[in-house]
This record gives sequence, C-alpha cells and structure tokens, in this order.
Amino acid sequence: MPEQVLDDISHRRYNPLTGSWLLVSPHRTKRPWQGQQEAPSKNVLPEYDPKCYLCPGNKRAQGDSNPQYAKTFTFVNDYSAVKEQQQEYTPEVNKDDVASLLLQAQPVTGRCYVLTFSPKHDITLADMAAAEIVPVIQTWTRIYASHLSATHPLRNQADKALASIPTNPDGEVDPPKAQLRYMQIFENKGAAMGCSNPHPHCQVWTTSALPEEPGKEFAQMAQYRGEHGRHLLADYAGLEMEKQDRVVWQNEGFLVVCPWWAVWPFEVLILAKRHVRALVDLTDGERLQLAEAVQEVTRRYDNLFETSFPYSSGIHQAPLDCTEEEAETSWLHMHFYPPLLRSATVRKFLVGYELMAEPQRDITPEQAAARLRNCGGELYRKLLN
Amino acid sequence: MPEQVLDDISHRRYNPLTGSWLLVSPHRTKRPWQGQQEAPSKNVLPEYDPKCYLCPGNKRAQGDSNPQYAKTFTFVNDYSAVKEQQQEYTPEVNKDDVASLLLQAQPVTGRCYVLTFSPKHDITLADMAAAEIVPVIQTWTRIYASHLSATHPLRNQADKALASIPTNPDGEVDPPKAQLRYMQIFENKGAAMGCSNPHPHCQVWTTSALPEEPGKEFAQMAQYRGEHGRHLLADYAGLEMEKQDRVVWQNEGFLVVCPWWAVWPFEVLILAKRHVRALVDLTDGERLQLAEAVQEVTRRYDNLFETSFPYSSGIHQAPLDCTEEEAETSWLHMHFYPPLLRSATVRKFLVGYELMAEPQRDITPEQAAARLRNCGGELYRKLLN
Ligand SMILES: [Zn+2]
Ligand SMILES: [Zn+2]
Repeated sequence: MPEQVLDDISHRRYNPLTGSWLLVSPHRTKRPWQGQQEAPSKNVLPEYDPKCYLCPGNKRAQGDSNPQYAKTFTFVNDYSAVKEQQQEYTPEVNKDDVASLLLQAQPVTGRCYVLTFSPKHDITLADMAAAEIVPVIQTWTRIYASHLSATHPLRNQADKALASIPTNPDGEVDPPKAQLRYMQIFENKGAAMGCSNPHPHCQVWTTSALPEEPGKEFAQMAQYRGEHGRHLLADYAGLEMEKQDRVVWQNEGFLVVCPWWAVWPFEVLILAKRHVRALVDLTDGERLQLAEAVQEVTRRYDNLFETSFPYSSGIHQAPLDCTEEEAETSWLHMHFYPPLLRSATVRKFLVGYELMAEPQRDITPEQAAARLRNCGGELYRKLLN
Repeated sequence: MPEQVLDDISHRRYNPLTGSWLLVSPHRTKRPWQGQQEAPSKNVLPEYDPKCYLCPGNKRAQGDSNPQYAKTFTFVNDYSAVKEQQQEYTPEVNKDDVASLLLQAQPVTGRCYVLTFSPKHDITLADMAAAEIVPVIQTWTRIYASHLSATHPLRNQADKALASIPTNPDGEVDPPKAQLRYMQIFENKGAAMGCSNPHPHCQVWTTSALPEEPGKEFAQMAQYRGEHGRHLLADYAGLEMEKQDRVVWQNEGFLVVCPWWAVWPFEVLILAKRHVRALVDLTDGERLQLAEAVQEVTRRYDNLFETSFPYSSGIHQAPLDCTEEEAETSWLHMHFYPPLLRSATVRKFLVGYELMAEPQRDITPEQAAARLRNCGGELYRKLLN
C-alpha cells in the first residue's frame, strides 16, 4: 500500500475534526527502541491524606468540609474560572470602528465543579476496576442531565437517565441559575500536566459560550454531514476498524485508536461506535463499556513506561443548550493527550515550531498504537511485590 | 470607559490574527502581588564549554567541527525534522472514498538550520547590546534572502539586502535545491521550553508547505484587507499606540505590546510600525531598531522575576515563494510566548481546559504590560556583585 512510505518520509497529516494539519517526521525515530531505562515507580501515597482538600472529611480552602463520601463527590470549585453572577458588560460595537473590530470581548458566565473519582487518595483510574469507574460515568451523566435546557432535544433521554441512574447525594449538583451553553469535563493527571494533587479527580467547567475546540469540531462535523450525508466519526470509526493499524483496543460499544492526526506521542481517542450524542444516550451496558475503555487506556498508559502516566483527557459531546441539528451532529468521544515520549522522564514539549508554525511529531500514530496494543495485561504496579 | 469592567469579570477575547477566542478570568488574580520570593539567579555558566555542540571549535554529533566563529554561525541541523530529499509519495485521492477524506497526508520537504547568536556559551539576547544583536538580524535576513524564489515580489529588496549587509562566512547557507514555501525562524529558550543547551541560538525551519499558524494569520489578514482596504496589523498598531494600556515599549520603527488576545501570561508581540513585509524590507536603521526591541523584551523578561526567563519566540513574515498579493498582505512581526506566571518557578500550564476547550488566562494583558513597562533599566544580573 502506498501509505507504507509514510513510515519513512516527512509529511503532513490532516485533522478532519479541527480542520488543521500537523507535521510528522518519522525518520527522526529510526534508532532502535531502548526499552525501560528507569525503575518502575511504586505507589508511595497514603490511602488517606489529612492535608488533601479532596479526601473525605477534610476542610477545604474556603472553610467547607468534605462529606464522608463513599464513591464520587462533586463540589463547586473554590477558585472557579467563571462564575454565575458578575457585573454586566455590553460591548459597544460600531461596525466601522477599528476598536470594535480588533478589541473584541464578550462576557462569560458559568460554574466550575471538582469531581473526585474515589474517596481513596492513592489510586487512579488505572487502579480502579471498570465496575468502580461506572459511578464516575454515572455522576458525569447526572451532572450533564441536570444542566440540559428544558427544551433540549435530549431532554427525554436526560430524564430517563436521571430516573435509571441511582442518585448519589455527594455527587449531585443544583441546576444552574441561568441556562448555559457547554459542559467541558476534563482531567489533568500528574505534575507534568500541572496537577499538584494526586487524589483522583476531574473538573467540569460549564460556560455560557461554546469554547473554541468543540466549536471547531462541530463546524467540521456539520460540514461533513452536509457534504456526505454521513457522520464524520461514524465513517472514521468504520475506516479504523477496517484498517486496524491504529486500533489499540475495542469492545462492542467503543473503539480506542491513536488517531491519524495525533499530535501527542501516545494520544488516544475513545470513539462511540454507534451514534451516541451525549452521555445521556448511553445505556447501562454502554456505561460499563465506556468504563472498560477508560480502564484499558489508563492501565496501558501506566504499563507503557511503568510509571503513573500523566495526561489531560476530556469528553466532547452535545452542547447543554442546542438545536435538534446540533444535537444530531454531536458524537460522543473522549480525547487523551499525554506528554511522555520515551520514558517516565522524557517528555514531548509543544514549543517553538509547534507554537509558531504547526504541531510536529516524530513517532507515527501507527507505531504508538502498536506499542499500546502490546502493553495490556495486569497493571505493572500490582505485580511489584 | 466600559472596558474597565473587564478587569473584574470573566470574558472571552477575540484574536483577529488567528480568528480564535480565549477565556480571561481576571477575578482569580485579586490577591495582592507577593513580590520576589526567590533569590535572583546568577550566571554560573562558563564562557566556553568543551562539551557544547555549539561552541566554536567543538565537534558535533555527526562528526563535523564548528569553525572558530566570531559572531553568528549557521549549519544544517544534524537531526532535521524535514529533509531536501526523500522517497516520493503521491496520495491516491478518490473524492468519494472515505479514506481519501479522513486519512489525508501530503509529503513535506525542506531544510532545518541551527543559528548561534554568539560564540559565547554563557550569554543570552538579554545580555547582548542591541548593536551585538544586529549581526543576528543580518544573518536572518541573508538566509531569508538566499531562499527567496527568483520571481519573488521581494526579489529586488532581497538583492539590495544581500548587497548591503556584510557577508559572514560562518553564517552563510547554500540556496535550497528546490524552491521552498515558508521559513520559520524560532527560538526555544530555557529548560522550561525543552531547550537543553543554554548556548544562545535559534532554529530556522524551511518547508515546502505553508504551516498552520502563519497560514491562519495570512487568511485573517487577507480577509481584513479585503473587507476594510487596510492592513489588520497597521490598524492594530495604531489603536494600541492611541490606547497605551498594552504598550510595553516602542521606538521609531517598532511597537512592543502585550496583545489584547495574549494567551501566555507575559506574551509579547513586536510589530513593525510601517508596512514591512519581510526582513529584507528593513533598512540598516530598522535592523538596529528591531535589535533594540528584542533587547528590551528579553531584558525586561529577565528583570521581571530576576531569572533567565524562558520563552519561545518566532518571526512571521512573507512566504519564500508567494504572489504579489501574498507579499502585500504580509506584515513582519515577532511573537514571544513565555510560560512563567508568578516567579522563576511558578509556571502556567497549557493543559486540560485549554487543550480540550480553549486557552485561558488569569492576569489580563493590561496588567502584564504594566509589569513589563516597570522593569526596564539595567539587566538585574549586572547589578549583582
Ligand atoms: Zn473532540
Ligand atoms: Zn504571527
């Protein structure tokens, strides 16, 4: 096949989800793989840390105390990037005024949550069984459902999800005071990703504006649907299942791939196989299947360099307030962007050329997928005595 | 003025150069400034390091020896991301084939250079006088000129520049074997930017493709010119000179601002005040003025936290091969993206929400500009005994 040559030559690949290109330089990785160069890292954290602001029963910065929660726990971030109430701001816009063109601003309101995955301070998603990750996905789903507008195309799905998923008093949140536009669920794991607290948790930022990245993806997905009458990510999932080169793992409901356009060395995309528009579309069985996919990705990451692998992950799905058309265009998926390149300490920097010109990578996504396919099996930490 | 409220509320700002938005959360920086918390860093490097692959006379990885150069020194990178010759690749494209749509690749050729700023291992641009930075700008200009196509709209300017700038045998490069499209000059400074060698240097990557970032900027600048009949960056420079809030420094030829849309805490943009399309348009006097601007930015950066301030910088200008229209649309400018936030060790991470949703900052560009305005004066290191 003609693509074989891409293992050897510099080329650009197109990301159809964002409409942008990246530079791939595979000839720079021709040296043989060095293998493990550092001792496997052990878990040296306590199960409970009296100084952790996320552990059950502890006090947080602003004086609130955490409940003795058993599974997940959700609270409004004490240092939210957006707030529900703030001074009004209505920009003066005069079409021919240079300031109106070049100094544009718009106010943003919203609410930011912190969500712990477990009361245990010393574990990560990689340490948790899929069944233990299900409550996390249930909490995400209930929070998402409780933020949907009354007239949302997924309102019925949301009500069904709320009725069928058991409530968790420590994971519930109040509906927002005013309808918001988008909910971004994301996790920063590890000091390399600026996360100073190892207690397993993610953040959920809800905003009155649709942010850039999901906005670009919607535009690209809508354009593809308009031109081809099919879903971009349906076509892409089908293509990857046929080619297999970039598939890391799959079950009935989800496909795990190193995408064709991956920027980060071991970037992964979890894709719903059927048309799931948002978390509230998932059945009980699919929530377990998504938990399995998350478990496989995070465990393989840790096994890869026998370290607690840093990453940022995030879920893209239908906006909180949207038209029928926008809901139809949405396709649930989860991105993982990890910075490690060759070992627990050799990282990839997105700097210089990548900031000024375009993203660049050396190892190909096909090589990355092959490595991740080969490091399933038990979490390495459990095999250390 | 109504913009005052933007010091207090969460809002998004628009970047007209790239057509994208970022989130600003100024209420998160309401705590008073803590001031210097770490001892000022001293220069502990030797002027010559026998192990440095950039110092004069030393051997490089592939066996070549560096000359005993006196000012700048340019060589082809031993580990180039792109090469001039490689296997051919012609993608098979069938318009209705899903693989042709979703697995797009294009070959890229080019040449990558490393360019040292000085034979001295232990200095940085901040330590150099403007007059010492002029040879760096001269070398950039000669390399750019030697890569322009024969029919380039700036060919005359390039020939004039080559005739008037003294040659530097250690800085010269051969013309490329085949015409290339774009030249990206960039510097990664400091370990925080993944740069392991402190010897002052930058990189110059020339490629057969126009990369993403300058491509987006061209599209935005061309659209603005089409709609308003004026240059986006001319209008923007005029506006900032009038408002002053974001101006850090200026001389006759160049304006230094923290742009309205800055993503990095102390991001800076150096803008030509008149219509300079590329380095070859600069007069002798303007090369010195640009050197002064670079000197002011880098010295103020170091003074800010009394440390050798890390950053990535890069120059955007006319492509190496372009139409009259593209050359006219171009406007020389230089970006500085530094990661430090509150001290020599507190950095900003672009992770999580920024990767999944959109860039976010706490301190406003106006606050950043005020801090940088106030730290001119002698380089702090020169005042340490
Ligand atoms: Zn996405
Ligand atoms: Zn630019």
